[in-house]
Amino acid sequence: MPAFPYAARRAAVAATLADRGLEGLLVTDLINVRYLTGFTGSNAALMLLAEDPASIDPDAPVGERLTGSTFCTDGRYVTQSAAQVPDLPRLIDRPSDRALLRRAQLRRVGFEADAVSVAAHDALQQVASRSTEAGPDRAVAVELVATTRVVEGFRAVKDEAEIETLRRACAVADQAFAGLLDSGVVRPGVTERTIGLDLDQRMRTLGAEDPSFETIVAAGANSAIPHHRPTAAVLAAGDFVKFDFGATVDGYHSDMTRTIVLGRPADWQREVFDLVLAAQQAGRDAVAPGRSGGAIDAASRAVIADAGYGDRFLHGLGHGVGLQVHEAPSLAASATGTMVAGMCVTVEPGVYLEGRGGVRIEDSGVVRPGGFEVLTSTGRGLRQV
Amino acid sequence: MPAFPYAARRAAVAATLADRGLEGLLVTDLINVRYLTGFTGSNAALMLLAEDPASIDPDAPVGERLTGSTFCTDGRYVTQSAAQVPDLPRLIDRPSDRALLRRAQLRRVGFEADAVSVAAHDALQQVASRSTEAGPDRAVAVELVATTRVVEGFRAVKDEAEIETLRRACAVADQAFAGLLDSGVVRPGVTERTIGLDLDQRMRTLGAEDPSFETIVAAGANSAIPHHRPTAAVLAAGDFVKFDFGATVDGYHSDMTRTIVLGRPADWQREVFDLVLAAQQAGRDAVAPGRSGGAIDAASRAVIADAGYGDRFLHGLGHGVGLQVHEAPSLAASATGTMVAGMCVTVEPGVYLEGRGGVRIEDSGVVRPGGFEVLTSTGRGLRQV
Repeated sequence: MPAFPYAARRAAVAATLADRGLEGLLVTDLINVRYLTGFTGSNAALMLLAEDPASIDPDAPVGERLTGSTFCTDGRYVTQSAAQVPDLPRLIDRPSDRALLRRAQLRRVGFEADAVSVAAHDALQQVASRSTEAGPDRAVAVELVATTRVVEGFRAVKDEAEIETLRRACAVADQAFAGLLDSGVVRPGVTERTIGLDLDQRMRTLGAEDPSFETIVAAGANSAIPHHRPTAAVLAAGDFVKFDFGATVDGYHSDMTRTIVLGRPADWQREVFDLVLAAQQAGRDAVAPGRSGGAIDAASRAVIADAGYGDRFLHGLGHGVGLQVHEAPSLAASATGTMVAGMCVTVEPGVYLEGRGGVRIEDSGVVRPGGFEVLTSTGRGLRQV
Repeated sequence: MPAFPYAARRAAVAATLADRGLEGLLVTDLINVRYLTGFTGSNAALMLLAEDPASIDPDAPVGERLTGSTFCTDGRYVTQSAAQVPDLPRLIDRPSDRALLRRAQLRRVGFEADAVSVAAHDALQQVASRSTEAGPDRAVAVELVATTRVVEGFRAVKDEAEIETLRRACAVADQAFAGLLDSGVVRPGVTERTIGLDLDQRMRTLGAEDPSFETIVAAGANSAIPHHRPTAAVLAAGDFVKFDFGATVDGYHSDMTRTIVLGRPADWQREVFDLVLAAQQAGRDAVAPGRSGGAIDAASRAVIADAGYGDRFLHGLGHGVGLQVHEAPSLAASATGTMVAGMCVTVEPGVYLEGRGGVRIEDSGVVRPGGFEVLTSTGRGLRQV
């Protein structure tokens, strides 16, 4: 695992809390907890304080009152959390969110409105309310304040360690795909599912923790289904075969799509493919700091609309990639946020002709001052297998 | 995919809505949507009405007012939803929850408080509030009512089609594990990660959609970590090796744990193993309709506590399995719910000696009128490899 700057990330988020009127932020989204601590287990929470004491012993037991920013998980993760979160006090209790809130001597605590369910919020509110009546064992009442995507905003702009990790994830996917095509398994008579399993196993063998998402292998008419699970459908000569897949490496998700043809392409296949490739290039060319996600989407979409296929491009142009395979920023018609250098996004237009077939071409890359640095290295031309 | 009775499931849930004072239930938990419709995509919602008209054309376009229970997803899933949800009217719009609520001519609509985030609830509330001012295009105001685990309650008790599916999932895991041990790959010098990949691939080749969760292979001292990700750690002679894994088949998740020893067991290993096996048997024997999850946990835990290892059993005894690998009911000290015939649960005590090693033994099975029908068929004795 690369040395990600967890303490610096926490300090950066904490520095914004006072301006939000918060003394602390209760981080319960597990991806955000991972981003801020390095913890990868399935249950945890972090109470991040706007002001931490100058020094704190991360290995001192956590008492009934928090003395600084504190991590909490449950008994399954005692050993793992000590290894992954050595630099924060660790509380072992559950439910972890309530355990931290109960011990927080704070007046205003933010919670993550997108990650906390209505039911979990009710339970937190009970803890917060009880504190107002508690008398001697509680110094202050707690007010819970909804926050929206505070940590996600930081996550959207990657540092170089993150970009290098994503680059490795893209390379694993590139190599796995090259190996798949070289192996000869992609041929008429083989099922989508067999090919998908083969591609996934190649990514794992090359070092992926997992595929980034359920790998899409879609042959023939199935390629017209934007999100198609691999089935027992058998590849046939003349089919488009669409692959949409990625590798997760040290938590970072690559994402790419390539569409190939089995044998010689028909004229309509060549036409659709060239159109999508031109649209994808237009999208790549449009990526630049300061440009909105909507404007980038429009630049690519115009190519497809001008050719009369506007209603066959059924989804947004792209999305951020990182610790999640879909994260901020969005590249879509309605996306108003602007690109910032260091953001990592996909560019993936598609045209889908129901009953016949479809094409999508997708790269992952980085917003750089000079434009889009593509991290996916597999060639984009129409490959005939 | 087996013929699951989606319409009957919807009718069963709908029949309880009037008693809850609800005219409709907005189902947004994707697992619950799958349970009630068969849809397996990544975005969908279902508006389930307490009273549906006697007949409705599922293929008629959905207008501005719902005329019966209606399914909603987005443009990526037009084709998939038509195939998977042929018996309900389908709306293509997003966000799907708000799209359905806006069209609902209802006064009181339940939402799933455990699945709806505070932010999503705020957005729904805006739709509900707007309806009160809307005048001619809205007949009634909508009141949103929090509900808790309505569909989950039905899901906890499986029908025979579900049990047969889970049986197949268990069989895939059993066969994959047998193949792994027969292959000779589990031996000193091999990494946990290599073995985990091998086991996962065997499950997939045998028909699993995926492992039920991240497969645990934990060797030597790592076996004392209840939830351990496979690492580059190398197996050594004399190690305990703990495997916790399962197969997902048609959406149903099996779950089993076996602990083996590489070579001849030391006395302490034999002692701990025999203790956990006795505790697991006691847990299995305690499963019966009408018994509480807490009582079953206690029956197994007592065996370990009586031997002086009570503080080394760090987690609950078990949990329900089904469309999720962890679902209702819970078998744990605090679990008050009682067993009902048809519930599918795990029984998985463990003893963990930090720095030395640990043992867990786990089966999945069904609560039957006569006791626990075990679905896992791999033998439980201490296997020496």
